[in-house]
Amino acid sequence: MSDLVIRNAVLADLPFIVGLIDADNVGGSTEDMSDPQGPAYRAAFDTISADPNQLLLIAELEGAPVGTFQLTFTPGIARKGGWRCTIEGVHVAPDRRNQRIGEKMMDWAVEAARARGCSLVQLTSNKQRTDAHRFYERIGFSKSHEGFKLSL
Amino acid sequence: MSDLVIRNAVLADLPFIVGLIDADNVGGSTEDMSDPQGPAYRAAFDTISADPNQLLLIAELEGAPVGTFQLTFTPGIARKGGWRCTIEGVHVAPDRRNQRIGEKMMDWAVEAARARGCSLVQLTSNKQRTDAHRFYERIGFSKSHEGFKLSL
Repeated sequence: MSDLVIRNAVLADLPFIVGLIDADNVGGSTEDMSDPQGPAYRAAFDTISADPNQLLLIAELEGAPVGTFQLTFTPGIARKGGWRCTIEGVHVAPDRRNQRIGEKMMDWAVEAARARGCSLVQLTSNKQRTDAHRFYERIGFSKSHEGFKLSL
Repeated sequence: MSDLVIRNAVLADLPFIVGLIDADNVGGSTEDMSDPQGPAYRAAFDTISADPNQLLLIAELEGAPVGTFQLTFTPGIARKGGWRCTIEGVHVAPDRRNQRIGEKMMDWAVEAARARGCSLVQLTSNKQRTDAHRFYERIGFSKSHEGFKLSL
């Protein structure tokens, strides 16, 4: 595989990102694919971009976006005031799976967390995604917690 | 039970908060109880206090702290650019358990998430805490995800 480039997302990436979320949602899509650069998505993008504790990222292969993920750095009291890095919105384009793109994205995430001095990296994954669970355990994560969600 | 008051934590609450985390850690404590107001804890407290997307909270009963939790509000692209509210560091004093304090804390958290326009509330809980899992399901959370952690 050619070198995967990880870069910050730009506004023009929104259709790609929203499209992946839409295609990849095990719980049924909640996206608006008719306007992936509409006001709601754009406001979210702008808020993320303006916050130094948020990184919205694109994995790119030969100039084409192939994956996306978001990192959130959160201060906390536990672990002697340690920061945690939460990984959300991990998606690889369906036609680019099984090329270790996800692994390189997660390596990058862990390195970014380390560089920021985080003491913990965490993520949740829908219980239906059993392939993803094996992947996360293989790269060193411990499936130690239950993940609870409440939609409002 | 007298009325439970939920208020922002102040610096003087740090020994109480760190003490609860220390006593309540199923994975073994990583805290420094010799100096719960030392530089590391104080820096974390100051960072949390300065960030409008972080709330470190104390539940108080008749003027005495009885519980703590942290809310983090995170912008994201999914769910039409919806915000999520993550609940971390939920602890109730050991001698105050089974008094519905946790339930009132979580009710407050969900209301705060709603007031901020969040579309999702989420938390993770160590797989060993089966009593807590029943509690979270009883108050409406869905145990839909696996929670993965990687200590750095």
